[in-house]
Amino acid sequence: MRLSRYFLPILRETPKEAEIVSHRLMLRAGMIRQEAAGIYAWLPLGLRVLNRVTEVIRAEQDRSGAIELLMPTIQSAELWRESGRYEAYGKEMLRIRDRHEREMLFGPTNEEMITAIFRSAVRSYKDLPKNLYHIQWKFRDEVRPRFGTMRSREFLMKDAYSFDLDEAGARHAYNKMFVAYLRTFARLGLKAIPMRAETGPIGGNLSHEFIILAQTGESEVFCDRAYLGFPIPPASIDFDDVAALQATVDHWTSRYAATSEMHEPAAFEAVPEEARMAARGIEVGHIFYFGTKYSEPMGARVTGPDGQERPVHMGSYGIGPSRLVAAIIEASHDEAGIVWPDSVAPFDVALLNLKVGDAATDAACAKLQEELEAAGLTVLTDDRDERPGAKFATADLIGLPWQVIVGPKGLAEGTIELKRRATGEREIVAVDAVAPRLRGAKE
Amino acid sequence: MRLSRYFLPILRETPKEAEIVSHRLMLRAGMIRQEAAGIYAWLPLGLRVLNRVTEVIRAEQDRSGAIELLMPTIQSAELWRESGRYEAYGKEMLRIRDRHEREMLFGPTNEEMITAIFRSAVRSYKDLPKNLYHIQWKFRDEVRPRFGTMRSREFLMKDAYSFDLDEAGARHAYNKMFVAYLRTFARLGLKAIPMRAETGPIGGNLSHEFIILAQTGESEVFCDRAYLGFPIPPASIDFDDVAALQATVDHWTSRYAATSEMHEPAAFEAVPEEARMAARGIEVGHIFYFGTKYSEPMGARVTGPDGQERPVHMGSYGIGPSRLVAAIIEASHDEAGIVWPDSVAPFDVALLNLKVGDAATDAACAKLQEELEAAGLTVLTDDRDERPGAKFATADLIGLPWQVIVGPKGLAEGTIELKRRATGEREIVAVDAVAPRLRGAKE
Repeated sequence: MRLSRYFLPILRETPKEAEIVSHRLMLRAGMIRQEAAGIYAWLPLGLRVLNRVTEVIRAEQDRSGAIELLMPTIQSAELWRESGRYEAYGKEMLRIRDRHEREMLFGPTNEEMITAIFRSAVRSYKDLPKNLYHIQWKFRDEVRPRFGTMRSREFLMKDAYSFDLDEAGARHAYNKMFVAYLRTFARLGLKAIPMRAETGPIGGNLSHEFIILAQTGESEVFCDRAYLGFPIPPASIDFDDVAALQATVDHWTSRYAATSEMHEPAAFEAVPEEARMAARGIEVGHIFYFGTKYSEPMGARVTGPDGQERPVHMGSYGIGPSRLVAAIIEASHDEAGIVWPDSVAPFDVALLNLKVGDAATDAACAKLQEELEAAGLTVLTDDRDERPGAKFATADLIGLPWQVIVGPKGLAEGTIELKRRATGEREIVAVDAVAPRLRGAKE
Repeated sequence: MRLSRYFLPILRETPKEAEIVSHRLMLRAGMIRQEAAGIYAWLPLGLRVLNRVTEVIRAEQDRSGAIELLMPTIQSAELWRESGRYEAYGKEMLRIRDRHEREMLFGPTNEEMITAIFRSAVRSYKDLPKNLYHIQWKFRDEVRPRFGTMRSREFLMKDAYSFDLDEAGARHAYNKMFVAYLRTFARLGLKAIPMRAETGPIGGNLSHEFIILAQTGESEVFCDRAYLGFPIPPASIDFDDVAALQATVDHWTSRYAATSEMHEPAAFEAVPEEARMAARGIEVGHIFYFGTKYSEPMGARVTGPDGQERPVHMGSYGIGPSRLVAAIIEASHDEAGIVWPDSVAPFDVALLNLKVGDAATDAACAKLQEELEAAGLTVLTDDRDERPGAKFATADLIGLPWQVIVGPKGLAEGTIELKRRATGEREIVAVDAVAPRLRGAKE
């Protein structure tokens, strides 16, 4: 992609309304634009990151055996009356009347609807277990939306819902998601620590939040440093192996880890002092087991092996991709801008043409872009009529993993300068060696 | 994917509320489920088709140089007051008040918002042309939603918006989309004919609808049969070649083609009788050039080469993927069910295990699924404990392009039966030859 043909409205000044670094950087880097309080358009660069985050989430959901569908954003109030949550949900729910004065709402979550879908289709334990998920825009009408996409009113959520015959089955479903989440966050370049959590309005009696550590995190967390070194379950893990999954979850819950709401100072004191870590954290995922809380009132029942009907045991499992984009920036940035992990970078390479209009430099850039793309890399070529300084600043700001710097001086010697954004390391390589070098680094 | 682990709620009976064949088949094949009047959940099989349709649309938008972003579903009323459409739009607009009593709406289209995004970022003709598109859920509160996803209230739309310095530039932008649409519909297996159209509430003075012919189409259309044989512009077409694109558009508008609203019987009579075709059609795309209708009142202005500021010339270009899924079925089905074009099929292959529980058959199916997937094909294996007749019926209903029929009798002779869904042709092939045969057919 050539920047002259792209749409990347970089801001030169730091927007005053942005209180946290991810919000500032997303605005400055032309990733998002506020359209109303807590409602954002995802500009092209931002959308590419959002899509990459979503792809990783989807891949790990699929690997765990969850099945994707897509529920609509608008729901009927009637459905929420069945569970009793329509009145209970409060002002965060965006309530709507359609032209026929029917009460509708913009879904803040989907327990009711997925339960209705399930009960209309499944009658027997033979069709269990099932885990159905979707990735859809939600709306929660926060009193005071802030922090950009970290806490927006309209936000993207991956929400999965599991259905099992009994508590043991539901526990295994919970463990599958627990493991899928560990893998998801690791692939996104994040160190996420599962912490026992309160269940809030979703209900239930077993719940974990996945928290990443970031200096700018919204809440205080306390945990054992050992978690930072725990190995991530491999892609080859067998999600049908009940014992193996339970062992993984047991291991990942064996040490102290708590948000401030669940913090027990006495237990924390028992952690060896050198392992004790009090830090700031950002919640990036939340999983719940809530038994028959929805299946009972809504009549989602299946026949068991004994011929008896019983309500299914359910859980729900949420990750917010639009929030995650901001969280990744909170965890990975420096003075000059964003530092994207390779797995979510909007492009792999910033190709900087330092002398646009110079025939040799233009030709070298065109050829390099072609070679890099042929090697499977995505490239954003800065072909704007700007000074080198402005191009370096833009490249650092938008944080692509590699900068390929092409100028007439280097070309005269047949060389190109490479810069790794994360470390600042630079190397001089032969023009022909650029694509093989970066393809190698990607693999 | 194994069907026993999938979520495919096939209906045995034809739903009474469905008036048209695509709606009936989408319900019966477990593709969608109605959640409220005109509001559907896309079940796993339906979502896969929707995603494939969307991918083709996206690929052709990108090829033409359009840039993807994503605008939110909820918009502020304020923005629509700038263009004067907030009052004008009528009851089809879903109007909402948030908790602070601010007037909001669920976007039925995005001319206003994209104009606001553009004007905040672009100041100079040097940044033109631009074409920005998104693929997002829209809401139009139809009085009487019907025909399933063909005319739903919540629907997916790809809407692109072009920005140019002058009318000539805008005409080229229009032609790019015209050509992109021809390619898109052809890749979706559809014969779409561009017909001059009225502009309606979008406004403007140049507009074409793309209409596919289907016996069950919603409206009457009149056209020259010659269009059915017109060649589709190749993938290699140069979208920057103004003359070549204009020639293509001229060719594709050289013969008679009109919807009933624009029909001129006298002109139609001038078409040679053997070429005259009166048929039913379904609108699958609509493109508009509307000049400065939005840029003028909303102040989207750029400085031209002469240093003078002027409002940009705009167009908008819509395709509804959720509607297209239904339209494809209207154009491609038979008595037994859906017949998916290869390009949008939810899976390439239905692998039918005719004797689940028989060790040899189960093993052969597992091996075949692995081989087919390794060959790049997507496979849905029917491993349900059902009679062969039920499996044949399901496979025909859901319409996957290939059926691979695996039973103990054939296996004893080392053979498998293949059935091509579209033609009903069957062939007996050696077990080892199945994957190479289908990979070859796909290429």
